[in-house]
Amino acid sequence: MVTRTVDLRSDTVTKPTEAMRAAMANAEVDDDVLGSDPTAYRFEAEMAKIMGKEAALFVPSGTMSNLISVLVHCEVRGCEVILGDNSHIHIYENGGISTIGNVHTRTVKNNPDGTMDLALIESAIRDPLGELYYPTTTLICLENTHANCGGRNLSVEYTDKVGELAKRHGLKLHIDGARIFNASVALGVPVHRLVQAADSVSVCLSKGLGAPVGSVIVGSKTFISKAKRLRKTLGGGMRQVGILCAAAFVALQENVSKLEGDHRKAKFLADGLNQIKRLKVDTASVETNMIFFDVLESSSTIVVKLCKILEEHGILVMPVSSSSIRIVLHHQISESDAQYTLSCIQKAVLQIQAETSEKGEGDVGI
Amino acid sequence: MVTRTVDLRSDTVTKPTEAMRAAMANAEVDDDVLGSDPTAYRFEAEMAKIMGKEAALFVPSGTMSNLISVLVHCEVRGCEVILGDNSHIHIYENGGISTIGNVHTRTVKNNPDGTMDLALIESAIRDPLGELYYPTTTLICLENTHANCGGRNLSVEYTDKVGELAKRHGLKLHIDGARIFNASVALGVPVHRLVQAADSVSVCLSKGLGAPVGSVIVGSKTFISKAKRLRKTLGGGMRQVGILCAAAFVALQENVSKLEGDHRKAKFLADGLNQIKRLKVDTASVETNMIFFDVLESSSTIVVKLCKILEEHGILVMPVSSSSIRIVLHHQISESDAQYTLSCIQKAVLQIQAETSEKGEGDVGI
Amino acid sequence: MVTRTVDLRSDTVTKPTEAMRAAMANAEVDDDVLGSDPTAYRFEAEMAKIMGKEAALFVPSGTMSNLISVLVHCEVRGCEVILGDNSHIHIYENGGISTIGNVHTRTVKNNPDGTMDLALIESAIRDPLGELYYPTTTLICLENTHANCGGRNLSVEYTDKVGELAKRHGLKLHIDGARIFNASVALGVPVHRLVQAADSVSVCLSKGLGAPVGSVIVGSKTFISKAKRLRKTLGGGMRQVGILCAAAFVALQENVSKLEGDHRKAKFLADGLNQIKRLKVDTASVETNMIFFDVLESSSTIVVKLCKILEEHGILVMPVSSSSIRIVLHHQISESDAQYTLSCIQKAVLQIQAETSEKGEGDVGI
Amino acid sequence: MVTRTVDLRSDTVTKPTEAMRAAMANAEVDDDVLGSDPTAYRFEAEMAKIMGKEAALFVPSGTMSNLISVLVHCEVRGCEVILGDNSHIHIYENGGISTIGNVHTRTVKNNPDGTMDLALIESAIRDPLGELYYPTTTLICLENTHANCGGRNLSVEYTDKVGELAKRHGLKLHIDGARIFNASVALGVPVHRLVQAADSVSVCLSKGLGAPVGSVIVGSKTFISKAKRLRKTLGGGMRQVGILCAAAFVALQENVSKLEGDHRKAKFLADGLNQIKRLKVDTASVETNMIFFDVLESSSTIVVKLCKILEEHGILVMPVSSSSIRIVLHHQISESDAQYTLSCIQKAVLQIQAETSEKGEGDVGI
Repeated sequence: MVTRTVDLRSDTVTKPTEAMRAAMANAEVDDDVLGSDPTAYRFEAEMAKIMGKEAALFVPSGTMSNLISVLVHCEVRGCEVILGDNSHIHIYENGGISTIGNVHTRTVKNNPDGTMDLALIESAIRDPLGELYYPTTTLICLENTHANCGGRNLSVEYTDKVGELAKRHGLKLHIDGARIFNASVALGVPVHRLVQAADSVSVCLSKGLGAPVGSVIVGSKTFISKAKRLRKTLGGGMRQVGILCAAAFVALQENVSKLEGDHRKAKFLADGLNQIKRLKVDTASVETNMIFFDVLESSSTIVVKLCKILEEHGILVMPVSSSSIRIVLHHQISESDAQYTLSCIQKAVLQIQAETSEKGEGDVGI
Repeated sequence: MVTRTVDLRSDTVTKPTEAMRAAMANAEVDDDVLGSDPTAYRFEAEMAKIMGKEAALFVPSGTMSNLISVLVHCEVRGCEVILGDNSHIHIYENGGISTIGNVHTRTVKNNPDGTMDLALIESAIRDPLGELYYPTTTLICLENTHANCGGRNLSVEYTDKVGELAKRHGLKLHIDGARIFNASVALGVPVHRLVQAADSVSVCLSKGLGAPVGSVIVGSKTFISKAKRLRKTLGGGMRQVGILCAAAFVALQENVSKLEGDHRKAKFLADGLNQIKRLKVDTASVETNMIFFDVLESSSTIVVKLCKILEEHGILVMPVSSSSIRIVLHHQISESDAQYTLSCIQKAVLQIQAETSEKGEGDVGI
Repeated sequence: MVTRTVDLRSDTVTKPTEAMRAAMANAEVDDDVLGSDPTAYRFEAEMAKIMGKEAALFVPSGTMSNLISVLVHCEVRGCEVILGDNSHIHIYENGGISTIGNVHTRTVKNNPDGTMDLALIESAIRDPLGELYYPTTTLICLENTHANCGGRNLSVEYTDKVGELAKRHGLKLHIDGARIFNASVALGVPVHRLVQAADSVSVCLSKGLGAPVGSVIVGSKTFISKAKRLRKTLGGGMRQVGILCAAAFVALQENVSKLEGDHRKAKFLADGLNQIKRLKVDTASVETNMIFFDVLESSSTIVVKLCKILEEHGILVMPVSSSSIRIVLHHQISESDAQYTLSCIQKAVLQIQAETSEKGEGDVGI
Repeated sequence: MVTRTVDLRSDTVTKPTEAMRAAMANAEVDDDVLGSDPTAYRFEAEMAKIMGKEAALFVPSGTMSNLISVLVHCEVRGCEVILGDNSHIHIYENGGISTIGNVHTRTVKNNPDGTMDLALIESAIRDPLGELYYPTTTLICLENTHANCGGRNLSVEYTDKVGELAKRHGLKLHIDGARIFNASVALGVPVHRLVQAADSVSVCLSKGLGAPVGSVIVGSKTFISKAKRLRKTLGGGMRQVGILCAAAFVALQENVSKLEGDHRKAKFLADGLNQIKRLKVDTASVETNMIFFDVLESSSTIVVKLCKILEEHGILVMPVSSSSIRIVLHHQISESDAQYTLSCIQKAVLQIQAETSEKGEGDVGI
């Protein structure tokens, strides 16, 4: 019998706190489609201020915030966007910017730290002289922190350089900042400085910040005005949305400060995992709240088995390949949960090893 | 100073009740994208059952529920949908099914009662022999109640006939049932019977039912499975969405039974307005919670002025043309509010008449 | 055995003349994608001049010329075009402007003469204040002559008025002028005057003008420059296209003057058909080279039978409904062909009548 | 004064031969949209036979043949196609499959020989279990010969392996065979064998084969039937298209056998260029009719200058980067033209070197 649940699949699993629930129960609301919901209005104004942009817009999800952002920048038929080949937009969003938005993608190799080489970005920009054959390069997308690259940060310096490159070529820069507050905390840089070079940023409220639902887009007033219309087209306009914004407000006040703890717990867990025989973590790459650890000499069945044993102990993790597993820390994982997790993983590895030795399957076992 | 607000612009302005707020504060939730939120799960199951369909899906808005429904039916490039020329999908949803969904529209004239003539629907169906020139007719859309046609109901008989017509031609039938519960109550027909002929139905929770946010799509399991994926593509997948579903649950339990009162108040108001000199309502057409009244010998400035005077008394209505105004009743409008509204409109009309007489502008005044 | 073929299905069936074949055999050509084919260059310059516009572009078909024109005007996501509910673009082009081009259509009723009421056009224009709900009205499309309305002409006066209306609302005007030369000849108005109010016009070369392949788009330099790029995207850029342009040049020189004869033959045939018992033509509506005649007390089987009998005599016509047939005149139909056709139709009607009388099927016979 | 033109920019510059012109002048034609043009019919049948597929379709360009092919395979919303990052479809076709066709692209690195590693292709295929997040992998595209990879061939073995991989995963395989006849001749393999594993192939007639206009798609009857409809939608349906098919017929009969000579001339030229100081060609990679040569220690101005000097001698080549130039051989380049070209390039290099030495700009000169 499972007596304890430690859900490490993602920071999206965070549940609303008592304060958030109270805020939702008491939120002042109105019809945000017909006019403006007062709580949504205040929340969007606050987010715009924090992010250092003119305006903000609350949307139901991170996927919609990226979709709208890319589509507003690429409003004319025939646009191409440059983005990382391992980016969330390219890999996990159903190809929506093409399949729904008619935007052509041009991928550039993501380095292990989430960056793309500036030279590669520049060489991916289409020559305007070839416009008879070429889509129009319109937008560059960065992701900070970069989920598929282990939750690593993009520095202010790097981001600024990409911003300069974009400007020099008349392009826009969008940052998928689903976890931009994690980057801000880890780098010790105010979040508005981190996105200063960007024309638009999407920020998730329902990941590490722990709000139940929502994401925010920030940008210029003109940009947000177009985004609002597109939100309606996609069906993201919600009526008494102040309910959700009230929770997001609490998330902002309560949980940004907890991210540092998430990163500390991630470091602790990464160090611990690295000491388990046949597990391997590049601890230096654990910069925020994510850990990707490799199971050496593994196979999909081993990884599945490991996840299954952990699940029996109430620990949920996410297999990401036939030899690696992702763990994401968040504010509802205590230090004790982290220790419990470490201990359970250690036992599970031993158990699998024992079983495979018995069967003489040492070669495929852990 | 306004001491009282009577918001009659739409039933979307309804605010969450105390019971809804309590439900949201106490909702059991989980990550509905990674797996399934228990409250969302229960709510969707309940809605499927009520609507008499296999499965249901909660989405952020009525626009998204229509958009997804049409796009799932029209999943192959080159589809055409037959819909009313005055339908919500055609008029008020940014043309999303074309501009986002690549579906070609073929409109059929909406009669004043919201129906389209069966013969006209049938003649709009493309001959498959002309497929070299013709888009593929794939779907027929009905709207019940029909907002732009005064909130009038489509009967079971009519809906069944369109369903038979659709089947005979191998087409699907979608019902935009944003206010289908109003139709059910007004007709005294269980809602599942009313949509029996439909392959999919969208139902709004944040209109007369009063939930803060949300709409539901119902259909077959296969249909809903495709709808779920498209919801993710559009960015309508939400994390701890049980919060919103908890409120919708309460809406379902508390407010369906209140719709009859809304219709009664609408009748009362319609009759009253019709007795005011120079106002005209087709009272027979007031079948549910909507009133469209004409201001005789009017002009846009007169209509704007009338709305403005009413606003000074805290009464919000919606001008829909240079000579007509829309009023929508809902459960947060009391009988006293209705009487107050009637009385204020009467005074406003007199006031405008007096002003225009003084100025000798009788010909353009009310 | 058929000894004679009279193909009246369309003026698209015209075959290249000896002069065209000679021109193609001797055309000076080059790669029109890499640079510019000299014959194409000269032909486009000539067409621009004739049409009174800055620039022109040769494309493979009338469908592509309309598709490109609409898409260049509607280059931003979210556009709506106003067009006739019986227009070629709406009915016969696979819905490409939506299914390929993401443009939302708003149809206005076509009058029997091919016009749309100005008031109806104006009321279909979306209020910019409702831009949160509304697609953006961008373009009005006219069709001159109007194929589905019997090949009738739009006058200069009407076209100019629509042009003024468009300008007043900041909209563009496109004319589907597939048969604009027929209109010009019938009205006795230079073609450039007839399209003066238009921002773009598409003109077919392979209909009454008799060229084997091609259509031309005319408009401003900027417009044509965008059209050229879109032509490449759609795959309409052709290499030694001067071959086709050489034939089109001859078409322009030889065949414009023959259109008057086509119209005269159409009148002759229409008058004759009208005198055949149980056939009916609105002879006043035969303004150019098309005739739509009704078979009274008919049914699909009667119409099919009539077409079949005619086919046995080498006469090809096009059934367009269960009671009407379309005939199109062109320069390869001689007066003798017209007389032969009339005589065959008369006999065919009598034959059908006789057969049905024998069988006692008088009620379904002609 | 230029007395001689040697156009080496592309094999698309080939002009119709006398035999082609005669064939066009005498072609039997009919309306290929209303029914079927007899010459087009025979040509398509012949192409289907040669390519070993059930059916074929003539289209105006290679871009349209690829666009239609990809879109027919990806007919359901939400598809993803795997293709080379250096492929013609990805680089030179305006991103049409996304911007017009809503298909999401997933690129795999093209090796210098035009292949993509099988393992990389396989790892790019989306896991159907992740269908909530992932577009649906539907199609793999190969290019043979591969233009941007120097016109190199894909072998039967490689193509078959990709075909097996595709089948194993339920995917389709399209081959952009714009220059598939070059591959066939170079490999000494019948063209039908080379494309045996493919579900569809596009073949250009206006490149090395020298027809003035056109490309052909081959595939199953069902596939071609869908392609025909999409051709109409895009505006690629042409009327008396037999004119163009007649020329293509001659191209097929006369010019396939000349490709071997083009390859021999390319080898000759490549060897010669490689002996010029500061020019470099990977002669082993010159497998068909293309040469990409590097100008060592170069810059864009040097390359531009070189091209300009050559142009003054009537030699047209295509700069493809700041240090490399493309030359394409075809049947209208004689051996004497090749020798003349070599000699002019040698002189031009010496001239530039001399000029830059004088100016003391040795460091940036050739």
